[in-house]
Amino acid sequence: MSEIKYPNKIVKDNIIQFKKTTNQKKARLGADFEDMINESNKYYLNKNVAAIYKKPTPIQVVKTEYPKRSMSKITEAYYKTPSTTDYNGIYKGYYIDFEAKSCHSDSFPFSKIFSHQVDHLKMVHEMGGIAFLLIEFPNKNTIFYLPANLLLQEYEKMKNGGRKSIPYKFFEENAYLIKRTYNPQIDYLKCVDQIINSLQNITK
Amino acid sequence: MSEIKYPNKIVKDNIIQFKKTTNQKKARLGADFEDMINESNKYYLNKNVAAIYKKPTPIQVVKTEYPKRSMSKITEAYYKTPSTTDYNGIYKGYYIDFEAKSCHSDSFPFSKIFSHQVDHLKMVHEMGGIAFLLIEFPNKNTIFYLPANLLLQEYEKMKNGGRKSIPYKFFEENAYLIKRTYNPQIDYLKCVDQIINSLQNITK
Repeated sequence: MSEIKYPNKIVKDNIIQFKKTTNQKKARLGADFEDMINESNKYYLNKNVAAIYKKPTPIQVVKTEYPKRSMSKITEAYYKTPSTTDYNGIYKGYYIDFEAKSCHSDSFPFSKIFSHQVDHLKMVHEMGGIAFLLIEFPNKNTIFYLPANLLLQEYEKMKNGGRKSIPYKFFEENAYLIKRTYNPQIDYLKCVDQIINSLQNITK
Repeated sequence: MSEIKYPNKIVKDNIIQFKKTTNQKKARLGADFEDMINESNKYYLNKNVAAIYKKPTPIQVVKTEYPKRSMSKITEAYYKTPSTTDYNGIYKGYYIDFEAKSCHSDSFPFSKIFSHQVDHLKMVHEMGGIAFLLIEFPNKNTIFYLPANLLLQEYEKMKNGGRKSIPYKFFEENAYLIKRTYNPQIDYLKCVDQIINSLQNITK
């Protein structure tokens, strides 16, 4: 039995157990932030701009009942640790992959992201996909786009004894600030466009 | 209340209800076939060749209990209709997206795939991703790779009054036959390589 403690959750044998006092969805990610991203993805999809979806939350089904012949009802199940990130899809032919986090402190603690999720973003980045984090600081009313290479750079420093979180100042100085708009609410593909442009300039 | 009947399942209000007599996982896809694909994806991942994952099955959680302070237990939930396809990921910088189906008849009935899944594959294909179906015919002991453009072509014919299924002969004549190998068990990326080569010849 392995147990890892995170601020709002306990991971035991690959099953996430949330503290009773915290709303599950909100514990994982500010629900409003998640809704805004989902709405933005719907906007992109309807405009035929990109097909990016949130993956379903992985659930371990233990027991199923059949109250009616035609119906299956799950009666015992648990939340599982996600294998990868929350969002992926396609934009301008590029594979897009990201994780979204809502951060109520004044820095982004690495404990908010699983190490296998960082490994996944690294692999995507190295394979030519566009990988990043979207980080919301509700207290500051800001949203940042942090490219995977910057996340990986800071994560590597942490593993070598560096600081356990990325300070807010780092985001201000190095990440892309995403201004809230009406529709889409979080136009993060504008940042992806900048990344694509810089990639194309390198290959020219 | 909308209800659509499929051979092995009933879709009511976006909730899939399987018939009692069929094992759920097997009803959706031959479990062995799914396992073989998952094992192949693990092989690709471990060799740093591709990062392709099966999306978790979407589940609508209705009730959650907290038997212990640190534990959340789902006590009522239902399977939902998937929004997209089962598998996606990245290979050689390309966005990969596919659906896998096990087919016990001598043709592939279009009722086995949701129309919104066909729309999704179409969108991915048009955006420059590599979209396809993997279809197993266990009775014939064969597995085929059907590129999205061929699926879309036949689907279009069906919508215009054509046949309601793709006959086995069509697969033999038009799709790629995947020979079972030891490791990976289903080396479908070999077919993707052929697609990539033909794309690169077009752009040359």
